[in-house]
Amino acid sequence: MEKIEHIGIAVRDLDAAIKNYEQILQSPCYKTETVESESVKTAFFKIGESKIELLQALNNEGPIYQFIEKRGEGIHHIAYEVADIKKEMARFKAAGSRLLNEEPKKGADNKLVCFIHPKDNNGVLTELVQTISTPNS
Amino acid sequence: MEKIEHIGIAVRDLDAAIKNYEQILQSPCYKTETVESESVKTAFFKIGESKIELLQALNNEGPIYQFIEKRGEGIHHIAYEVADIKKEMARFKAAGSRLLNEEPKKGADNKLVCFIHPKDNNGVLTELVQTISTPNS
Repeated sequence: MEKIEHIGIAVRDLDAAIKNYEQILQSPCYKTETVESESVKTAFFKIGESKIELLQALNNEGPIYQFIEKRGEGIHHIAYEVADIKKEMARFKAAGSRLLNEEPKKGADNKLVCFIHPKDNNGVLTELVQTISTPNS
Repeated sequence: MEKIEHIGIAVRDLDAAIKNYEQILQSPCYKTETVESESVKTAFFKIGESKIELLQALNNEGPIYQFIEKRGEGIHHIAYEVADIKKEMARFKAAGSRLLNEEPKKGADNKLVCFIHPKDNNGVLTELVQTISTPNS
């Protein structure tokens, strides 16, 4: 686990939350992205070596809609950067953690990701993130 | 706001959670500390430039006891490192945020801290942290 890659925060109104977090962090939103497979719109801010990711549900489905319905806006997950996601997934699985996806999947911001069940991490939804190498990166 | 100083996670059993997070982060707990004024025992782990802080209630009082009673274990707050806590507190207050303490107070890990109401930050309890300078540091 190299660093905290980002903290994901579930919000009701992405545009209003972007203004709020630009004020809080004194850092501009540098990217917004829609991830249809997760039914979310996301917005990213840099803070030190990490990021804040705001997430708004696209519709009345998906994990962010369900999270906000259940407990309102708030911190949704912690994502850690890893060098080799398959190796880390195997390590978590061997330690008894339940992986929410058995194969790495494509996430926002050009990443391969895997989510780990919050029950296995003291109530914290935990994401492993590996940057996808591209010819230009 | 310089960086994510730490993420605070509320846990029921600090000793068990320390073992769990040493496994998750592959990083040893480097310090435990009791903060009587907050009715908590804390444990710290390094991850990149940031830390994970586990918090267990000392008794049936205080914010961590109340948090776990209400929603179970999970992410409790995000703390940002600031260079000048009084200046940042004034900035948040001017932007309409409610400060939970009007003067910086002594927190764990040799810090001055101020908490900002979660309702003013999209449901996120937000902590400002300034390291206390000491003659040896």
